[in-house]
Amino acid sequence: MRVGQRYVRDDRTLTHLCLVSRALGAESIYLEDAEKDVVGTLDAVNKTWGGDFKAVLGSSWRKVIQEAKKEGRKVVHLTMYGVPIQEAVEELRKEEKLLVVVGGPKVPGKVYHEADFNVSVTSQPHSEIAALAIVLHEIQSGEELKRTFQKSRLRILPSARGKRVVEN
Amino acid sequence: MRVGQRYVRDDRTLTHLCLVSRALGAESIYLEDAEKDVVGTLDAVNKTWGGDFKAVLGSSWRKVIQEAKKEGRKVVHLTMYGVPIQEAVEELRKEEKLLVVVGGPKVPGKVYHEADFNVSVTSQPHSEIAALAIVLHEIQSGEELKRTFQKSRLRILPSARGKRVVEN
Repeated sequence: MRVGQRYVRDDRTLTHLCLVSRALGAESIYLEDAEKDVVGTLDAVNKTWGGDFKAVLGSSWRKVIQEAKKEGRKVVHLTMYGVPIQEAVEELRKEEKLLVVVGGPKVPGKVYHEADFNVSVTSQPHSEIAALAIVLHEIQSGEELKRTFQKSRLRILPSARGKRVVEN
Repeated sequence: MRVGQRYVRDDRTLTHLCLVSRALGAESIYLEDAEKDVVGTLDAVNKTWGGDFKAVLGSSWRKVIQEAKKEGRKVVHLTMYGVPIQEAVEELRKEEKLLVVVGGPKVPGKVYHEADFNVSVTSQPHSEIAALAIVLHEIQSGEELKRTFQKSRLRILPSARGKRVVEN
């Protein structure tokens, strides 16, 4: 889930966050209603490249966190002020299901308090896309890189030179 | 170095690529002259958060690759068509210095041939920012997360709740 983005539209960053979540093994992403334009992009990506990653629209961040906790999920909030991922990761790997909250510049202070873990990827300013990628990668110990996506139209055959794509 | 971006301006993605490179331990990033607006942002970040990460302007991708090879650097091109990072990483860790090339949608085919390694982070479409982050993280075995930046004005004290920042 993304919380606290700026009010200027930032479609590129949103698209990256969605596609990184999908590629690195998340089930779904929670978005605001105003962000629904990305849903078409995600449907097209699923159709071509497989899997059933979903965007869930319209819930308030507070409600998403409440329901995640009811389901027994721990809430991990990514922030440059948090505990280094390398110190938190062992505990996070023990959890079966998580809700990862990607904070923007306007993230409400309450998110820090409702999160079970506030986690940083370096204490330097960089990119919520990069932070999300490294946290998903670390929590899954790199296993997410080996995943295949079911029911794709196209599939890449990894190659040392050039591009090899096959139709399924 | 970034090669093959679209001709629409995409400042947000460029800024993320620069800041991720800096935060995850790169020395510098090679940019086109048209991208020089980001230099002010990087100077401001260095001043506040430390270190001496540099943007190098104006060289053609061909020249940057040639000079990197002359210095003995191996060239790693990130592409979703490449060899999975988890299969290439052991070899990459043996190198002392690398040039990482982040390809955009218009990357020339020759880049695939001049690169010593074409490497993918999943064979799914996602984000060059995320791919760069995971590749830098993997090559450095996570050691880059422990790095401190010299001569900063501000410093974050990692914290389980809230924000703690000190002036140096």
